[in-house]
Amino acid sequence: MLTIYGVLRSRASRNVWLAHELGMPFEHVPVIQAGRAEGSGVALNTRSPEFLRINPNGRIPAMKDGDLVLAESLAINLYMAKKAGGALAPKDLAEDAQMTAWTIWAMTEAEPHTIEVLYNSIGKPPAERDAAKLAAAVAALKAPFAVLDAALAKDGFLVGGRFTVADLNLAEVMRYAQPAPQLFEAAPNVKTWLAACQARPAFQRMMEERNKEPA
Amino acid sequence: MLTIYGVLRSRASRNVWLAHELGMPFEHVPVIQAGRAEGSGVALNTRSPEFLRINPNGRIPAMKDGDLVLAESLAINLYMAKKAGGALAPKDLAEDAQMTAWTIWAMTEAEPHTIEVLYNSIGKPPAERDAAKLAAAVAALKAPFAVLDAALAKDGFLVGGRFTVADLNLAEVMRYAQPAPQLFEAAPNVKTWLAACQARPAFQRMMEERNKEPA
Repeated sequence: MLTIYGVLRSRASRNVWLAHELGMPFEHVPVIQAGRAEGSGVALNTRSPEFLRINPNGRIPAMKDGDLVLAESLAINLYMAKKAGGALAPKDLAEDAQMTAWTIWAMTEAEPHTIEVLYNSIGKPPAERDAAKLAAAVAALKAPFAVLDAALAKDGFLVGGRFTVADLNLAEVMRYAQPAPQLFEAAPNVKTWLAACQARPAFQRMMEERNKEPA
Repeated sequence: MLTIYGVLRSRASRNVWLAHELGMPFEHVPVIQAGRAEGSGVALNTRSPEFLRINPNGRIPAMKDGDLVLAESLAINLYMAKKAGGALAPKDLAEDAQMTAWTIWAMTEAEPHTIEVLYNSIGKPPAERDAAKLAAAVAALKAPFAVLDAALAKDGFLVGGRFTVADLNLAEVMRYAQPAPQLFEAAPNVKTWLAACQARPAFQRMMEERNKEPA
């Protein structure tokens, strides 16, 4: 059985959502960000020596499956999907390449800006939010939203005309932009796609578990 | 035959280096960054309608192989290595996962900082360089260099005890940090590893071709 390290109020949400999609059993070790550790009641944090032996980068999530230890949430998901096989995984090398490329696109074109939307709207305490950073992030996302909207126009999914790990990986990155609904109003295919992703029972189950964790 | 789009003074260097390693024939279409297009003599730039039909993100490199069109330099390299097979490619799913994870690590932990080292040392005109940004980038790289140094201590490579596409992908990201030699002096395994990567004939051939392009 594989182990997923990281509280659900972190990028570990991506891995737990996928595990639920795949019906893949896993042990969950709730490691918390060091900055949130005090008073959390969570035994391990990202600077705990025991966790640094798993991921010397001191970041969550991490994953262990037998002798294989992995960091980087999106790489973990590509591995889990391929290990399980089935509809969420690539069926050939071309799909593998496209799923990897969309996953990297999520990291390079979207996440640096979507995380700023989140932090500067609902993520940080009001006094720490920066309206200029929020506006800059929304402006920077217009072009990627347009590219994604066009890519989804054909059949509503990123690769192979079906929901795959690529959609899941990108959906979790785009979730951070939801406090800026104007981006989704301007990209109706993105809005429909993200709603379909988040309507999936495995996502809803993960979010219910996540919402039970202390904020 | 596959096509690689992008001048070598861009992240297309990664793809051309790998093609040379693999002995993989390719057509090279030298698309230039729109901001460098004027007076360059290069026919296509990243805002040319003909290129935007290949990569609507307007970024180089991009790749076309039959019906498959890919963006994102590091995803292109994982695809090319797997297509070719052999020592540079993963031999199983665990190696595939580790190579993907190191590639993503290069993007998340290293490149945002190594590119700032480059820009603020030799990359930008002297008047545009920011010494504070350079110092901040060097400081941010100390922890990732230490993690990488420890990972290389066992056998000098990232995955499987041999030079693979993971080393190549990360080496091109770490090249940007070479104007800060103090980082490498503090991480001797990283220094030895990068020198070994850059001593490879395929890298030297790519750099010779690159240096013939206008600066």
